[in-house]
Amino acid sequence: MTTIRDVADEAGVSVATVSRLINNSGYVGEQSRQKILTAIKKLNYIPNEIARSLNKQSMKILGLLVPDITNPYFPSLIKGVEQCAMQHGYMLLLGNTEGQEAIGENYLHFFKQYKVAGLIKIDGTHLNTPENVPTVSLDRMNDHDRFAVVSDDFYGGKLIGQAIKETNHGSILIVTGPLDIKVSQLRLQGMQSVFDQHKITYQIYSTPSFQMEFADQVALEIIHNYPNIDTVIAPNDIYALALIQAWSQFGYVIPKNVQIIGYDGIVFGAYAHPGLTTIEQPAYQIGYQGTELLLAIINQQIDQQSSKIIQIKPQLLQRNSLREVE
Amino acid sequence: MTTIRDVADEAGVSVATVSRLINNSGYVGEQSRQKILTAIKKLNYIPNEIARSLNKQSMKILGLLVPDITNPYFPSLIKGVEQCAMQHGYMLLLGNTEGQEAIGENYLHFFKQYKVAGLIKIDGTHLNTPENVPTVSLDRMNDHDRFAVVSDDFYGGKLIGQAIKETNHGSILIVTGPLDIKVSQLRLQGMQSVFDQHKITYQIYSTPSFQMEFADQVALEIIHNYPNIDTVIAPNDIYALALIQAWSQFGYVIPKNVQIIGYDGIVFGAYAHPGLTTIEQPAYQIGYQGTELLLAIINQQIDQQSSKIIQIKPQLLQRNSLREVE
Repeated sequence: MTTIRDVADEAGVSVATVSRLINNSGYVGEQSRQKILTAIKKLNYIPNEIARSLNKQSMKILGLLVPDITNPYFPSLIKGVEQCAMQHGYMLLLGNTEGQEAIGENYLHFFKQYKVAGLIKIDGTHLNTPENVPTVSLDRMNDHDRFAVVSDDFYGGKLIGQAIKETNHGSILIVTGPLDIKVSQLRLQGMQSVFDQHKITYQIYSTPSFQMEFADQVALEIIHNYPNIDTVIAPNDIYALALIQAWSQFGYVIPKNVQIIGYDGIVFGAYAHPGLTTIEQPAYQIGYQGTELLLAIINQQIDQQSSKIIQIKPQLLQRNSLREVE
Repeated sequence: MTTIRDVADEAGVSVATVSRLINNSGYVGEQSRQKILTAIKKLNYIPNEIARSLNKQSMKILGLLVPDITNPYFPSLIKGVEQCAMQHGYMLLLGNTEGQEAIGENYLHFFKQYKVAGLIKIDGTHLNTPENVPTVSLDRMNDHDRFAVVSDDFYGGKLIGQAIKETNHGSILIVTGPLDIKVSQLRLQGMQSVFDQHKITYQIYSTPSFQMEFADQVALEIIHNYPNIDTVIAPNDIYALALIQAWSQFGYVIPKNVQIIGYDGIVFGAYAHPGLTTIEQPAYQIGYQGTELLLAIINQQIDQQSSKIIQIKPQLLQRNSLREVE
């Protein structure tokens, strides 16, 4: 087998110089550079790093798809992914999809090109993930996903239904996220299971996006379309915070005039006025556990052809945006 | 030059099979795999992707160091970096340093190993960045940095000084970030230039960190140590929001009993009660422009041995956490 010394001898330079070039760890003059590259070709030398990558067909890099890095729920989750990956010597390639399938596809194309060892996706669209790359879905999953760590969204919806039922709720508006995303459907079904059982009526307002950038606009639409609503169930915390702010500007008192509940449990819910009552999902834990699962698949401790879905139960986080139980 | 067809002929498999192996784009049987790897070695074939990486000594990957992904200021900035990188076909390796030099060093080690084409760092510590990797500092810089996009922190400090001077400020507490980070020094000097000129006295409380996770604890310390303070200048928005929440719980009315100003301009400042008056830094723009600068260096449109520091002027964003000007 050709060694780095053979290359150095052939090129007439020192081993250190070849090493600098290969590892990109210092200056190499143009003339030496050309000599080394010629020697590498002539001697059929494959540097270890590249040979390893050819053999293992992957590097210690994970691809990560997230829908909205500006929604604080996801950075908490990413931090869990990142800290687990780091502890095991893996790096993260970041893909922020803005919830758009086309951007997701584009990133998947890159991830494949760079031979990621595994893929973590937080994606509600119907991306075709590569068959041969170990993949774990976090937070959101589709029917065909085999590995996932998600919170129990139906149960989260039920928690909302029960919390609202206990209050003097009046007219209820459920603002859902996009209904082609399964988490939106499951949460809605969870709420409906409680409301229907107790013959509580409600209206539904479906928004086309969970994205931060539309939150203020959707808040104004809701105030315009439902000026006399008594209870609003928001699709997530950022939409709930945008609603609280908009209502306050229009002179509504919360929860007296209108009560609201969020979803996610981001820390900024505590800083609103009043503090946002919400369903808390353990974002960091989902990220960390999901990455452990992915690494177990990559390291063949879990068969890639099997299946494992971990569901974490979310919790009601009571602050002050619901009227007190009588 | 050896082509992929030569490898396929030598190995006795189809070009498509060789391509699948090289690009990791589908199943290849173990026997074919061995034949192909043998043929690749024998024929001295270097796949394009790897040849390119050997020649260019880097892949289209940028390394990104951020101190705290859970502080919403940074995701906005990262989004600017990511969208500019994506538009130019570059991927991001994410390194969340928690503001700790050791974690930063660890990431730099990885980045080098993966031959990043360039490095973007948001770092207040004194990391030794690799000499031969094009590097741009964002948001924070050190004296020896040659390329940076930062906001004018001295000017930002002056804006705070002027805004406070106009109010009925009473006793003033300046809460600074870590004073070994240059942005903290510059902002403080900016404030001092105004206060000293107008013979306004102030106290300084220096915190060891800008990190989100310490915000609530620092807020309680400040309330405990300065129960009768009239004006607080927070080191950033998340610390300001934590203070507003803590004061409200202790029954303080803001800005009547105590007024506060933040720094950064994160969107959640608008959702606090009262809305947080702050210094707005254009996070997305800093990220985007910084990445354009880095790509210009990588593409040798700008000489790596030269220097370019872009300073962006921050703005006062008036909401309701300062007492009204008389």
